Amino acid sequence: MSFNVITISRDFGSGGRTVGNKLAEALGIPCYDSEIVDKIAENSEFSKEYLDKKTDENNIGFFSNIFKSNYYYESSEEDIIFAIQSKVIKQLAEKPCVIVGRCSDYILKDRNDVFNVFIYADDEARKKRIIKQYGENEKLPERRLRDKDKQRAAYYRYFTDKQWGDPRNYDICLNSAKLGINGCVEILLKAINDK
Amino acid sequence: MSFNVITISRDFGSGGRTVGNKLAEALGIPCYDSEIVDKIAENSEFSKEYLDKKTDENNIGFFSNIFKSNYYYESSEEDIIFAIQSKVIKQLAEKPCVIVGRCSDYILKDRNDVFNVFIYADDEARKKRIIKQYGENEKLPERRLRDKDKQRAAYYRYFTDKQWGDPRNYDICLNSAKLGINGCVEILLKAINDK
Repeated sequence: MSFNVITISRDFGSGGRTVGNKLAEALGIPCYDSEIVDKIAENSEFSKEYLDKKTDENNIGFFSNIFKSNYYYESSEEDIIFAIQSKVIKQLAEKPCVIVGRCSDYILKDRNDVFNVFIYADDEARKKRIIKQYGENEKLPERRLRDKDKQRAAYYRYFTDKQWGDPRNYDICLNSAKLGINGCVEILLKAINDK
Repeated sequence: MSFNVITISRDFGSGGRTVGNKLAEALGIPCYDSEIVDKIAENSEFSKEYLDKKTDENNIGFFSNIFKSNYYYESSEEDIIFAIQSKVIKQLAEKPCVIVGRCSDYILKDRNDVFNVFIYADDEARKKRIIKQYGENEKLPERRLRDKDKQRAAYYRYFTDKQWGDPRNYDICLNSAKLGINGCVEILLKAINDK
């Protein structure tokens, strides 16, 4: 194949992470997701536990933190972590791999051997999936989806200046509710291997 | 396959129409595009020449016309033509076919045997393609793209109340500049035949 790295961006509850894992397995290459946090911890003063809350697109205190700096020339903690995360992703992408989330499509935008994927699904399918995967909690499923969608869009917009989920940021976008998780993997294998 | 109808929506200059024609040929079913205008003419008082200017997403006088009605209960000519177009598309979709453009994804949204595709490409690839396909004219290629993009987005928003190019309106979105026209056709055949 002419692509060495595949990035998977995904709507919350679409099963994009599972697509990434299965695709990597089929290609015989590693899939990086939470491992990225371990690497950031190794490369910084931040603990893994602290970073777990900070490096996700679901970072709750994201907005309050990026506006917390006292001076316009002072980087927020989020900016510092994003810079380390970018370095880690670039290092990992030196060898063939699949990378899930974390603006990896944008971080690797200057390379022409990277294939960028977006996985999404309709709200009904996503609601069912998050209850099955993460269980019920005090928030209604539609509220959980809306909150995460807004957080991901804000995180992506802040660091990339692009619109979350715009197909023009990706090479292929797949509806996992319509195509199935395994269907998505099969289509991606075809798209990647044909090039 | 479990889909009887495939709709192809596409960014101007992305080659989506060619993808539709080649896909239909591979599946041995008809591809409807300009034929829809002939059918609307048969079903209305409007001439084919007049409709050619009216039924396209690139309808130039679109905005001035939809606001031209004197009374709030009076349908604009655009609304009347869209109603006939919807009827024609529903009739054509009674037999297996590929339909290019004309909000066909939205018009057929209540059917579960319809597969909705969006084809797009980066601006550089689209500029090259429109010059090759339609030749140069007095407008700069980037201006031609921007004008058509805005017109399509406005037309789609007016009739469907959805955002043009949002992947969540489709089952699959393909970057023809990255995957190639034939690559898109191959991927679509796999996606359709696997279901």
